[in-house]
Amino acid sequence: MFITFEGLDGSGKTTQARQLVSYLRDQGYEVLLTREPGGTPIGDQIREILHSLDNTAMTPNAELLLYNASRAQLVAEVLRPHLATGGVVICDRFYDSTLAYQGYGHQLDLQVLRTIISFATNGLRPDLTLYLDITPEAGLRRRKQASLFGDEWTRMDDMELAFHERVYTGYQALMQAEPDRWMRINADQSTEQVQQAIRQVLEKHLV
Amino acid sequence: MFITFEGLDGSGKTTQARQLVSYLRDQGYEVLLTREPGGTPIGDQIREILHSLDNTAMTPNAELLLYNASRAQLVAEVLRPHLATGGVVICDRFYDSTLAYQGYGHQLDLQVLRTIISFATNGLRPDLTLYLDITPEAGLRRRKQASLFGDEWTRMDDMELAFHERVYTGYQALMQAEPDRWMRINADQSTEQVQQAIRQVLEKHLV
Repeated sequence: MFITFEGLDGSGKTTQARQLVSYLRDQGYEVLLTREPGGTPIGDQIREILHSLDNTAMTPNAELLLYNASRAQLVAEVLRPHLATGGVVICDRFYDSTLAYQGYGHQLDLQVLRTIISFATNGLRPDLTLYLDITPEAGLRRRKQASLFGDEWTRMDDMELAFHERVYTGYQALMQAEPDRWMRINADQSTEQVQQAIRQVLEKHLV
Repeated sequence: MFITFEGLDGSGKTTQARQLVSYLRDQGYEVLLTREPGGTPIGDQIREILHSLDNTAMTPNAELLLYNASRAQLVAEVLRPHLATGGVVICDRFYDSTLAYQGYGHQLDLQVLRTIISFATNGLRPDLTLYLDITPEAGLRRRKQASLFGDEWTRMDDMELAFHERVYTGYQALMQAEPDRWMRINADQSTEQVQQAIRQVLEKHLV
């Protein structure tokens, strides 16, 4: 079972994914939690390049290729081996983020993106994608708040609001195209309520 | 005028490119010398990941995407702006290296590689490609020799001989497919003789 979390920055994906992992482990599942970009030593080096505020000269095409390099490494080194043992994988962002951020946000050609994604993943697809739904304004507000308390403010956070609005629209389009895979969770409620909603969705999917 | 140098590691590309740049500058040309991977601050960070001997777990797909991320940055930030001013660009390796090393060497799908290259370069192609011809055995011998005198021995050098032989075969195929763009230079002679041969070829191409 391969579960991904998607949504705007500030939607609470990372917190929710961690809580879900604890819950599933308590239920006896072998759960691997990972994230993009990163999740491997090579991916973490790529993540540093992507997030560094020194790298504002980065072109959208270079950015897209870096995300997919990290992904290729993660799929081959971590995801496929764990899934092959029958374990559960929970990934904080996966290729839908590429389509939303680079495809819709940066307006790159979606068909070329899908070719590159397919090359990076060798065709691996999530079984279930949990979308934490929050508006761009609320997401940015939460990120700014978190950065005051020590969270890193990244190059992606620094993009203009119009960019985050295009990403938001992109997610809606992706959900409409594959309604069976996507589950929308209202993320504009307390952490406990969001986690409760996630568990309810999962009960239908896990045997 | 966009000139690239290609050939196996140890064929003398870097030395020859530098000497050619000096020569062309003496002739009054505005010449930019660059290299792949690298050539920009972001590209240099990617180069470190690619060359680090700590990263032997890197998959061929991740490797290919990293090379092209560096390339996308180089094309947009350096190559196109310089070519737009009418200058000469000399690049130590370009996308033919991807086709030779990752396509033929790692046996990745050439058609997918061309899609990714075209995405990274936005269609930029060299006007002239100088191939420094040396056998895989001689190339490795020279690299080992150079590493004794302080040159870094990289993860690419560390690949098995069969890999370098497939790369060599790949270069022959690329040359046959585009004979007008490629000029083969015998690199199994003295540095001075190789440079002389390069200048003779260039005289026909530069006005």
